[in-house]
Amino acid sequence: MPKLYHSPNTRSSRVISQLMLMGKLDAVEVICVDIVKNDGTGRRDPMNAHPEGKVPYLITDEGETIRESGAIMMYLDELFGQPLSPKIGAPGRGSYLSWICYYGGVLEPALVAQFAEVNHPALVGTFRTLTEVGAQLETGLRDGPFLLGDDLTVADLIMASAFLWAPHLMPDSAVVKAWVARVAAAQDSTAMEAFEAEAIQSLEVKTSA
Amino acid sequence: MPKLYHSPNTRSSRVISQLMLMGKLDAVEVICVDIVKNDGTGRRDPMNAHPEGKVPYLITDEGETIRESGAIMMYLDELFGQPLSPKIGAPGRGSYLSWICYYGGVLEPALVAQFAEVNHPALVGTFRTLTEVGAQLETGLRDGPFLLGDDLTVADLIMASAFLWAPHLMPDSAVVKAWVARVAAAQDSTAMEAFEAEAIQSLEVKTSA
Repeated sequence: MPKLYHSPNTRSSRVISQLMLMGKLDAVEVICVDIVKNDGTGRRDPMNAHPEGKVPYLITDEGETIRESGAIMMYLDELFGQPLSPKIGAPGRGSYLSWICYYGGVLEPALVAQFAEVNHPALVGTFRTLTEVGAQLETGLRDGPFLLGDDLTVADLIMASAFLWAPHLMPDSAVVKAWVARVAAAQDSTAMEAFEAEAIQSLEVKTSA
Repeated sequence: MPKLYHSPNTRSSRVISQLMLMGKLDAVEVICVDIVKNDGTGRRDPMNAHPEGKVPYLITDEGETIRESGAIMMYLDELFGQPLSPKIGAPGRGSYLSWICYYGGVLEPALVAQFAEVNHPALVGTFRTLTEVGAQLETGLRDGPFLLGDDLTVADLIMASAFLWAPHLMPDSAVVKAWVARVAAAQDSTAMEAFEAEAIQSLEVKTSA
């Protein structure tokens, strides 16, 4: 069974939500760990196999290690028959790969720069800003309710997760806001909250032990 | 025929090199465009279909648009039967996805931050630095000459391209240096230089026209 390192209410939460959506949470061993947050709280957890103590982190049945949310979410989707992505050669495959790489390569750096109020010409020149991200999303949503059209995919889960995590950084666009709400509605927020509450409790028990 | 927007000696050059390696350069229409470089030279080329005037950018036969080198390189490899990647479900697939997302999500931001001498705790906390990238590469190269073992894949092409472009930022590691040299040797640098020289000339003709 693949091992997923998870910390509640962090970048790994979207992986849990994806597993729930696929009905495969029971097919993965979730290991709850503490991490150092940007505000300095938390600690580096010796239980966490990630080489830099971050989450998410996945170890496959073959012992391969996967870091980066996009890679882990793509891998889990592939492992369970690609319920949330276009098959290789199928329509939408190119757009799908584009959004996954765009998330890590543009949205994350742009979001972190804006969040931390780092404004440097080299960063803006390379990654642009959330303004361009908003425009890119509006273009992507021209032809359907989700980024690849009619069907929700991992591309929606990962792209929308940024704005579910940081709603104050959401592009000021009715189209984008409606899409984030649709992606949120497709996920089971009640089950997710219950899962996270239990994860937090398990960490507290571990810390006080 | 897919359309690839390319500018000589930039991030799109590795896509050209990949196409050469696959023997598929003739199967893609390469459109040479000018771009604004970090040093301020160049110009935004009206011929470039990329929404922000960057390269590489790919338009598929189905009219899908793909941005980000990792996505374009994965797509082209898939389009031509995956000569440079493990198939879904095959050994190495998890590691492959991990390296592709790690390139855009970690190596690029860390490289740009170091290159531009931006040193901010939020950036370091999120992306870490080239020191951790070096350690990750050393771990990845423990079991073979290439990142996935015996075979060169797109993971090697994209990861090594950063240090071929900026050798002064290469991690100070004999293992990493030997691997970058191996990846370079696997590519046809003579053909690549000839291609780029012609691309530069075609741009000069266009600009002076």
